[in-house]
Amino acid sequence: MTATRGLEGVVATTSSISSIIDDTLTYVGYDIDDLAENACFEEVIYLLWHLKLPNKEQLAVLKQQLADNMDLPQGLIEGLKAFPKNAHPMAVLRTAVSQLGLYDDEAEVMEEKANYEKAIRLQAKMPAIVAAYARIRKGLEPVSPRKDFSFAENFLYLLKGEEPNAIAVEAFDKALVLHADHELNASTFTARVCVATLSDIYSGITSAIGALKGPLHGGANEQVMKMLSEIGSLEKVDSYVYDKLENKEKIMGFGHRVYRKGDPRAKHLKEMSQKLTDLTGEPHWFEMSTKIAQIVTSEKGLPPNVDFYSASVYHSLGVDHDLFTPIFAVSRVSGWLAHILEQYENNRLIRPRAEYTGPGKQSYIPLENR
Amino acid sequence: MTATRGLEGVVATTSSISSIIDDTLTYVGYDIDDLAENACFEEVIYLLWHLKLPNKEQLAVLKQQLADNMDLPQGLIEGLKAFPKNAHPMAVLRTAVSQLGLYDDEAEVMEEKANYEKAIRLQAKMPAIVAAYARIRKGLEPVSPRKDFSFAENFLYLLKGEEPNAIAVEAFDKALVLHADHELNASTFTARVCVATLSDIYSGITSAIGALKGPLHGGANEQVMKMLSEIGSLEKVDSYVYDKLENKEKIMGFGHRVYRKGDPRAKHLKEMSQKLTDLTGEPHWFEMSTKIAQIVTSEKGLPPNVDFYSASVYHSLGVDHDLFTPIFAVSRVSGWLAHILEQYENNRLIRPRAEYTGPGKQSYIPLENR
Ligand SMILES: CC(C)(COP(=O)(O)OP(=O)(O)OC[C@H]1O[C@@H](n2cnc3c(N)ncnc32)[C@H](O)[C@@H]1OP(=O)(O)O)[C@@H](O)C(=O)NCCC(=O)NCCS
Ligand SMILES: CC(C)(COP(=O)(O)OP(=O)(O)OC[C@H]1O[C@@H](n2cnc3c(N)ncnc32)[C@H](O)[C@@H]1OP(=O)(O)O)[C@@H](O)C(=O)NCCC(=O)NCCS
Repeated sequence: MTATRGLEGVVATTSSISSIIDDTLTYVGYDIDDLAENACFEEVIYLLWHLKLPNKEQLAVLKQQLADNMDLPQGLIEGLKAFPKNAHPMAVLRTAVSQLGLYDDEAEVMEEKANYEKAIRLQAKMPAIVAAYARIRKGLEPVSPRKDFSFAENFLYLLKGEEPNAIAVEAFDKALVLHADHELNASTFTARVCVATLSDIYSGITSAIGALKGPLHGGANEQVMKMLSEIGSLEKVDSYVYDKLENKEKIMGFGHRVYRKGDPRAKHLKEMSQKLTDLTGEPHWFEMSTKIAQIVTSEKGLPPNVDFYSASVYHSLGVDHDLFTPIFAVSRVSGWLAHILEQYENNRLIRPRAEYTGPGKQSYIPLENR
Repeated sequence: MTATRGLEGVVATTSSISSIIDDTLTYVGYDIDDLAENACFEEVIYLLWHLKLPNKEQLAVLKQQLADNMDLPQGLIEGLKAFPKNAHPMAVLRTAVSQLGLYDDEAEVMEEKANYEKAIRLQAKMPAIVAAYARIRKGLEPVSPRKDFSFAENFLYLLKGEEPNAIAVEAFDKALVLHADHELNASTFTARVCVATLSDIYSGITSAIGALKGPLHGGANEQVMKMLSEIGSLEKVDSYVYDKLENKEKIMGFGHRVYRKGDPRAKHLKEMSQKLTDLTGEPHWFEMSTKIAQIVTSEKGLPPNVDFYSASVYHSLGVDHDLFTPIFAVSRVSGWLAHILEQYENNRLIRPRAEYTGPGKQSYIPLENR
């Protein structure tokens, strides 16, 4: 028995949801480029959950279900108000999603219909939680969702308390599409391992949020913005990046376990970053980013991943930096839910082995003699 | 690429903490039989975290640290009071442990010392959370921990609000020793996958609680008690069990991914079950259990696992049935913490692959044409 470090290359499950083959990402057979260009986030949610695109009526129903389910239980809002104001929003999201399960009378019901309805509730309430805490910690009251708004519109509205402009909505919607699913990434795998014990959906999503939070995974987008802020200006990029590389430190937003030539999502976010930083009159974030990418790619052969340009995109949309990873979660929960439902459909406990490398046989020695 | 269902037999990591070899379980080289006979739970915690047994002074320090850290933040107690009274205690524990991270100023500090101190806090506060909610939902006030009590004593004291008797303490302590670690079981694996993104300890433990909750894993002990209660008397065992087997339903508390001949922990719990059900004047729980085991083993070749006799043990200790899995968590958190600290020490992202089995290449069709 020899351990495969990080389970690299090990195939842990079959899945019909998304695929990465030869550096191409597809959701249910649709190329991510095709979807980024054409589909709205709600269509993608439907696609991931039903393995086909919705027709007009099916889409309208799902949109309405999402808008109708965005309100939060009063107890949850009280909880958010009572939490320390300096907690990391991902830790708050992890807690609030777990708490949400306490208010759901169907939390423990394992039937397919009940689970699908819980999926809708979770997908709808996650953006509301993120936005509510973002406002509460600033001393603002949470805003009520608008039943006539799309998912992307509602999230921006809940966050800012005012009707968002069309450019912001379009950009945010595209970011949601790009982040929705990604085969057996670490948080999705965490969720599947968790629910393969036949634990409930809230447990699965809570554990996935915990995993996404890590800087090697979703947490990287916040770290990228931290790096950009630390560097501060275009002239300082060179020395900063070369120093890091010399010290063998990782540059956040680069590298990937699966992609070798590059992450197909990055080019869309790069384009958005250029456009949005131009519009906000802060093109230096984009210029710094491209310069960092040039150096890291030429020095280490590592192309930017999904988290690299999303940092300057979210910053341009006026989002607080520590909300970048929660936004990733608001999109990725659609994929987590699809994978959890798929896991339930054909379940087996996920329980690998460890190779024991500790001390050999020992005998207990009474405490007096130690 | 072909998927290994449930990762059966796949070696996901090296580990020096515990091993299962030829149906023998060891913690750091000590046979579980040896430890069950001789060690107290605090010695086992030390063993799992330091890979050696403590001397007198080291043990005294750890015991004091645990007793000193059992108090809960006021905000957490307020939270527990506000939660619905009918929520599953495992869902409450999952939420409260996640929330605990919000009050910990070092939650996001990734240094070894900070992580070790968080491990102590988590180990100490988990029993306090379980006991506090158990009291609160009955309309009782939580009790303050006693600094002069052992871990097992304190848990029973926090739960019942009175000094526990020696037999109960001894039995409970042994149950804690038996449940402390178990190689790469599903909840431990969930925790390792989660923190391999370099996410924090609270995320790791929260996700492990979510996984343990499932009936194929730690949730089985509560299900066993449910089955015993449903059967109700010795005469009804036969028809109940044969019916279940005929309907191809699983009998909770039997089977195991790794053990083939039997679970070495079961015999200790069986002995305890016999003794305690005798003492409480309810020997029928033990008699029913042994009869169920006879049938399942002879019909299916499946010996009982750790969860089977622990049900009647905890029942005899006067513990509410839906607290059985939280008690498992109060012990297993010692192992989760050991594995999380080990994962940090030599980390790599855990990110396997999925074999894509969905539709082939598709092209986006505009909504109007669907
Ligand atoms: C994504 C990631 C975790 C993949 O991890 P992995 O498959 O285990 O890759 P490894 O850590 O084995 O990296 C392979 C080599 O590339 C280097 N490398 C990987 N990512 C790097 C980065 N971002 N910056 C600098 N070097 C990097 C490693 O140091 C290693 O070099 P070595 O062989 O000389 O030791 C890793 O690339 C990373 O940490 N990236 C930064 C965080 C990030 O952006 N995460 C978001 C992913 S969408
Ligand atoms: C522990 C457990 C999840 C291991 O799962 P696994 O390694 O995936 O085992 P499988 O589900 O592949 O079981 C192998 C065979 O034994 C049967 N089996 C396993 N556990 C069984 C049980 N408790 N009762 C009846 N049949 C059982 C399965 O139905 C399967 O039969 P088949 O080959 O005819 O389909 C499984 O034994 C189980 O669900 N047990 C009950 C729950 C429990 O007690 N969990 C606590 C474990 S400590």
